[in-house]
Amino acid sequence: MKIEDITFNENGLVPAIVQDEQTGNVLMLAYMNEEALTKTIETKETWFYSRSREELWNKGATSGNRQMVKRLSYDCDQDTILVQVEPMGPACHTGEETCFFQTVFEEEMPNRQIVYDVMASIQNRRNN
Amino acid sequence: MKIEDITFNENGLVPAIVQDEQTGNVLMLAYMNEEALTKTIETKETWFYSRSREELWNKGATSGNRQMVKRLSYDCDQDTILVQVEPMGPACHTGEETCFFQTVFEEEMPNRQIVYDVMASIQNRRNN
Repeated sequence: MKIEDITFNENGLVPAIVQDEQTGNVLMLAYMNEEALTKTIETKETWFYSRSREELWNKGATSGNRQMVKRLSYDCDQDTILVQVEPMGPACHTGEETCFFQTVFEEEMPNRQIVYDVMASIQNRRNN
Repeated sequence: MKIEDITFNENGLVPAIVQDEQTGNVLMLAYMNEEALTKTIETKETWFYSRSREELWNKGATSGNRQMVKRLSYDCDQDTILVQVEPMGPACHTGEETCFFQTVFEEEMPNRQIVYDVMASIQNRRNN
């Protein structure tokens, strides 16, 4: 990918979905400008552009909750980024692991969560 | 959640991340207006607003690749929706399972994918 291939919107931004690469949980959505995307690729940590503060920010620089980038992809029409990360702490400013902690409705617990919990539990028993 | 709690942007839209609830794969990002969000909650299928065609669309209505909504969440600042679905077919118009099939870089295969593949393989052997 070249940065030029990405379509930034009328404000010079592209939405970036951040996902925990291990659990698969979607952590947050934030926006990158060209500089934030470049810095993310260069440093392998997430950088975004804050629309409210109108400035670049390195996620976790002050809180310590950095996100180490394991994989970076973009979608078919090249106007959305997917960043898969290893999070060093909660993604949300509320202290929640993910910003998507408010659920409107839910049918059942997804199998992948059950599978992940079982594997984590096995690993835990092996270690302790 | 009340629809009124959601912050729609200056174009009356809110970004919606669509995720496969079983594999955890992020499938696509699309936009909902108030009507699309209402219809998604009511019908438990995904509805979006097409910015290029300037019309409401029910994902899969023509292709058959519908997305059955299993869980709908929103983020801490109430300006992004997360829809976890059971997809009836590929999410991408290219025929790819996910729109995010173009990878800039990747460190390693995530454990959850390995775990999911192993479980799928065990299930497959049990069934056949």
